[in-house]
Amino acid sequence: MDAVRFELIKNDEKTKASLGRLRTPHGLIETPVFMPVGTQATVKAMRPDQLKEIGAKIILSNTYHLYLRPGHEIVKAAGGLHKFMNWDGAILTDSGGFQVFSLGDLRKITEEGVSFRSHIDGSKHMFTPEKSMEVQNALGSDIMMAFDECPPYPAEREYVKRSLERTTRWLERCVKAHKNTEKQSLFGIMQGGMYKDLRKLSASQIVEFDLPGYAIGGLSVGEPKELMYEVMDYCVDYLPKNKPRYLMGVGSPDCLFEGVERGVDMFDCVLPTRVARNGLAMTSHGRISIKNAAYEKDFSKLDPECDCYTCTNYSRAYLRHLFKANEILSSMLLTNHNLYFLINLMERIRNSIKDGNFLELKREFYNKYGEF
Amino acid sequence: MDAVRFELIKNDEKTKASLGRLRTPHGLIETPVFMPVGTQATVKAMRPDQLKEIGAKIILSNTYHLYLRPGHEIVKAAGGLHKFMNWDGAILTDSGGFQVFSLGDLRKITEEGVSFRSHIDGSKHMFTPEKSMEVQNALGSDIMMAFDECPPYPAEREYVKRSLERTTRWLERCVKAHKNTEKQSLFGIMQGGMYKDLRKLSASQIVEFDLPGYAIGGLSVGEPKELMYEVMDYCVDYLPKNKPRYLMGVGSPDCLFEGVERGVDMFDCVLPTRVARNGLAMTSHGRISIKNAAYEKDFSKLDPECDCYTCTNYSRAYLRHLFKANEILSSMLLTNHNLYFLINLMERIRNSIKDGNFLELKREFYNKYGEF
Repeated sequence: MDAVRFELIKNDEKTKASLGRLRTPHGLIETPVFMPVGTQATVKAMRPDQLKEIGAKIILSNTYHLYLRPGHEIVKAAGGLHKFMNWDGAILTDSGGFQVFSLGDLRKITEEGVSFRSHIDGSKHMFTPEKSMEVQNALGSDIMMAFDECPPYPAEREYVKRSLERTTRWLERCVKAHKNTEKQSLFGIMQGGMYKDLRKLSASQIVEFDLPGYAIGGLSVGEPKELMYEVMDYCVDYLPKNKPRYLMGVGSPDCLFEGVERGVDMFDCVLPTRVARNGLAMTSHGRISIKNAAYEKDFSKLDPECDCYTCTNYSRAYLRHLFKANEILSSMLLTNHNLYFLINLMERIRNSIKDGNFLELKREFYNKYGEF
Repeated sequence: MDAVRFELIKNDEKTKASLGRLRTPHGLIETPVFMPVGTQATVKAMRPDQLKEIGAKIILSNTYHLYLRPGHEIVKAAGGLHKFMNWDGAILTDSGGFQVFSLGDLRKITEEGVSFRSHIDGSKHMFTPEKSMEVQNALGSDIMMAFDECPPYPAEREYVKRSLERTTRWLERCVKAHKNTEKQSLFGIMQGGMYKDLRKLSASQIVEFDLPGYAIGGLSVGEPKELMYEVMDYCVDYLPKNKPRYLMGVGSPDCLFEGVERGVDMFDCVLPTRVARNGLAMTSHGRISIKNAAYEKDFSKLDPECDCYTCTNYSRAYLRHLFKANEILSSMLLTNHNLYFLINLMERIRNSIKDGNFLELKREFYNKYGEF
């Protein structure tokens, strides 16, 4: 029996949207779900009790960062990542692949794996499928991601094909190397760039492993949004409906709607937390840059339709003051709001699928939000 | 009737320590009390609900900073500082005097007041006793401090004498200018440097105004600790016992004990919050620099005798990781601990006065804490 099990609850009649339940060793998660990112064993500027308060059930953490600092052995000695960071909800860890590929000149890819230099101190390291599994087993995440290669955009068809086939061979090695199947589940990752037939090829190869979940990798890597939606659309169809389908690294409000409409069950993105630290808030009426002079004497709520801690207790004028004064509380309150906004939006999306009015909610939301 | 009223509950038999109660428009405060500092309308890295959680009843905020940013008129338009920052406990504001004197070359003192340039944008401003009252009335703090001059250390006797007499004249102007006596109380500030007779002179002048509380200013300005304790000792005696006596800007654990022993009722200090952001924790067994390599694999509590949120849920290894990774949560958790540590220490001090064993607690604490 897989550590993580998915149950399909309802298919929307007018779209490919669906409701599901993901059972993990750390709680039941209703899908579609948005996962906040906690790169370095903390969702930036949030205490775990606050994450609970805003309804987060699962967070993502990064293997590359934790491997380098504090080191997976230390996290393991602490009793695993959940205990180390005091988070008893579910955790998904990425494979480290995406981060090491992003290092550019600092890394080299071979069939064996990827050798790279640390962005912190320049020290030499190597990630292989086996190493990624070892690290993720040490971290003890509920969902582990396979070690894959995410090609850049644009990329030559021939390169993408060779790369996805290597990703499949790496998946086979991941499956063999995974040592803790009772408590941790491994998800495979489909690649194939923006080539439809290659996406199909990748999917057909990875579903052979009958894994408890699959991700769509290699999107939101610089391609136009329309192209992303087009690729997303057929990618989902190549993956089994009775397994969760996770769109990696995507999480702006419009992407959530478009992804859900195309059948995506899981999302993660640094966007809400990162922009919060830059003074940007997502609201029901669009994005707000809190440093704007217009908010100097604006004593209204950040988002008039939001009932998060930030919107309940503070005015735009106060939030602007905190940001201008470079106060830590600015990051704390805006992060809290942005995460709540997306988590709450996902709940409304789930309810709309339940009630059969997903497209109505989408239309209403888009009308109010304006430009994305 | 004064907005803030003090009641003396018990005098310690062996020392000048005493228990009291301070009634404010925003709650009852048991003394001796430690006040966390919230310079820019926020105690750095703390949400107000967390301040409540750790037992804070009164915080200090800075008139100079709020006057410059966001501006006292904006705070007033927001409904006052309590509402602006979402803090329904008591607030004490300083007069802005100390900050403008600290500007060095950027300020000039006359009988009228102090002209200065903003540290933010270099703009020209003038603080007078009347202006300080106007700003503090706009902020709406429960306790306002008189506009005084705090001479540097060391300072010539003649200068200190002229300065304290001007401070008395400024106090008279403050009393006249204070427009909201029903909801805000004005405390006077004793000066006089390290000169015993001048301290006595200053005290005798300011107590003439029969104010609801008095502060000892001009200590902890660079003088040796022994000298500070000596001056503190006689300063307290020159102030009435039935009014709260507030030692400004002092708050290391040893200073709290020494101050309480000499009869001080109120303290404030940026120390616990500032050092927290630099990775320093105050614990029952002394100060800990969390970045120390010794804590890399130390999975024990930050302070084994502490039951704050940080100590209950996290290990030293995790806190070290957060600090090394430059995570905001590091400042949040260490600030939470340090403030709890001092607030909890004050509660233990009050209980020891109640139980008649203050000196025993002091001895026990000093033995464990080691070097201050």
